Amino acid sequence: MNPINRVWIVGGTHGNELTGIYLIQKFGRQPALIRRSNFTTHTLVGNPKAIARRQRYIDTDLNRSFERRWLTGPTATGYEAERAREICRLIEGDRPADSAAPVNADPGVDVIIDLHSTTANMGLTLIVDSEDDFNLQCAAYLHRRHPTLRIYNSAHSGRKHDSVRSLGQFGIGIEVGPVAQGVLNADFFHATEALIYSALDFCQDYNVSQAYGAIAPAALSPLPLTFYRYVGTLDYPRSAHGDLTAMIHPSRQFQDYAPLHPGDPIFQTFDGEAIAYTGPTTVYPIFINEAAYYEKGIAMTLTEQQVIEF
Amino acid sequence: MNPINRVWIVGGTHGNELTGIYLIQKFGRQPALIRRSNFTTHTLVGNPKAIARRQRYIDTDLNRSFERRWLTGPTATGYEAERAREICRLIEGDRPADSAAPVNADPGVDVIIDLHSTTANMGLTLIVDSEDDFNLQCAAYLHRRHPTLRIYNSAHSGRKHDSVRSLGQFGIGIEVGPVAQGVLNADFFHATEALIYSALDFCQDYNVSQAYGAIAPAALSPLPLTFYRYVGTLDYPRSAHGDLTAMIHPSRQFQDYAPLHPGDPIFQTFDGEAIAYTGPTTVYPIFINEAAYYEKGIAMTLTEQQVIEF
Repeated sequence: MNPINRVWIVGGTHGNELTGIYLIQKFGRQPALIRRSNFTTHTLVGNPKAIARRQRYIDTDLNRSFERRWLTGPTATGYEAERAREICRLIEGDRPADSAAPVNADPGVDVIIDLHSTTANMGLTLIVDSEDDFNLQCAAYLHRRHPTLRIYNSAHSGRKHDSVRSLGQFGIGIEVGPVAQGVLNADFFHATEALIYSALDFCQDYNVSQAYGAIAPAALSPLPLTFYRYVGTLDYPRSAHGDLTAMIHPSRQFQDYAPLHPGDPIFQTFDGEAIAYTGPTTVYPIFINEAAYYEKGIAMTLTEQQVIEF
Repeated sequence: MNPINRVWIVGGTHGNELTGIYLIQKFGRQPALIRRSNFTTHTLVGNPKAIARRQRYIDTDLNRSFERRWLTGPTATGYEAERAREICRLIEGDRPADSAAPVNADPGVDVIIDLHSTTANMGLTLIVDSEDDFNLQCAAYLHRRHPTLRIYNSAHSGRKHDSVRSLGQFGIGIEVGPVAQGVLNADFFHATEALIYSALDFCQDYNVSQAYGAIAPAALSPLPLTFYRYVGTLDYPRSAHGDLTAMIHPSRQFQDYAPLHPGDPIFQTFDGEAIAYTGPTTVYPIFINEAAYYEKGIAMTLTEQQVIEF
C-alpha cells in the first residue's frame, strides 16, 4: 500500500452543521494546528451556498451526491450535483468525460475526514464505511485516546458509495450530538477538534508503520473493541398519505446506542399511546430523531454490536 | 371590557418548529379537545409555505411582520408580508386600504395563543407581551396548574407590535425547549398541549368572572409570582466583518433562567479562552444559543426578575 500523501478535512458538507464550518475557519487562521510531518493537510468547505443560507442543502443532499454514475453522467442537475463534480475534480484531478478513472491520479493515498453534527444523542462518534485495516486501526487508535468515542460501522449503509468521504482511498466521518441545526456548541467544537488532531496523528503514525513493514499502530491496543454495525433503518409510523402518526417515544429519545429489545416502547401516538418495537432481536438504535432524516423516512438507524479483536 | 368571543391557536408561525404544527393537525382531527362553552376556538396554520420546506420562513420572519405600517403600507413585499396581510384580514376582517382600523370589528375580544419551540433550554415558558390584567391573571392561573412554568414578560421587546399575537386584544406565546429545529419531541408536544387546554379553561373562567363583576380568577392565587422581564439582548463577539469570534461558554449553555453575575464566563473563543460578562448587574438570560437568533445578532436575551403580588 502506498503511503498517505494528502489528508482532506471537510466541513460544511451540510450547511446548517456549524461545528465543522467554524473548525475549517479556525484551521485557515492557524494552519500549523493541522500540519503533520509526512503528508499534506488540506481543508475544504463542502457546500458554501447552503452555508450562506444556513440550510442543509440547496437542491439535494451533497453527502448523497457522489455516486459514480451521477458524477460522470449528464443527468445530475442542481447545485449539489455541480458542486460534487467540482469537489471530485479538486480531489481526484481532471478526468475524461467518458471515464470514471482519474487521469492524473496521485500514486499516494488520500484520506478524507468529514465533519458532521446530529440532533441525536450520539456523543462523539467515529463513522467508518468499511472494515479495511486502515479503518479498524484508526478506530482503535482514536478510541485509546478518546475512551468515550463510539464507532459506527456503516459498511452496509450505502455511504461508502455516495458520500464525500467515498472520494478518498480512506475516509472517516466524525458525528457529534445532540446539537440543534444552526447552533454552535462549544463542548462539541472542542471535542471534534481534539479528535481531528488525533486522526492526523494516526495518519502520521500509519505512514511510519507502513514504511517499517506495516507494524500496525493498533497493535499497541490489544483490547477488543465494540463497533456498532448498520443493519437497517426504521421509519416513523405514517398514514396512507405519508403523514406522521406518531413520535419517538419519550423513553427512547436521546437513548442512542442503548439496547432496544423486542416489545420495548419505541413510538408514541399523538394521543399518548405507546407503540412497541416488533423486530426479532435486540438492536442498538442511533440517529434517533435526527431532524434531517424525517424527509428520508428514517426515525432511527438500527445497528448491532460487533466486537473486533486486534 | 367585552367578553372573549374567539380564541385563535396558531401553529407553524415558524415552519421548522414542529410542536405547534402537529398540535394544530391534532385539533383538526379532534376539535372537541379545544371547544369551550362561552367562546369559539379557531386554529390557524401560520406559514404553510415555510412548513412545506421545513424552514423558519421563506423571505422574512413572519413573527416580525405585523407592524401596522407594514400591514397597511404598499412597501412590504415577499411571501410573509402577503401572508401577514391574509392573517390580519382573517382575524380582524377587511379594512379600507388607507386605515388601520378594521371596518367589521367584532365587539368581542380575540385572544391569540401562538405556539413556538426554541433550541434554548427554556423548559415550558409562557410569553406575555404586557402587564395587562388579563396577562397577569392568565400567568397566575397557568402557573398554579403547571408549577414548572416560567413566565417571560416581553413588554419592552417589541413583540407587542410586530408578532402574530399582536393582532388579538390579548395574546400569549408558548415557548418550549430545548428542541432542535425540525424535530418533534413527544414530551414537549404533550406539555404544550396541556398548557393550551389550561389556557382555554382560563379564558372560559375569565368570561364567567367578567360576567359576574370582574372577580379575577387569579384571586384564587394569592402567592407572589416571579416574571422574567426583558431588559435587552446580547450579541456574540464578532470581528469587524461580522464573523463570530466566540461561542456560548460551555458553563452557560442550557442555563436559561439561571442568574448571570458580572464577571461570570459567558463566551468562549475558538481557542478556548473565556470571556466574562461585563454588565453592571445580575441578569437572567433566556434564549441562550437560539439557532434562529444568530442572524438577528442575539446570543441571548437578558431579563431581570420581577415579583408580582396578586
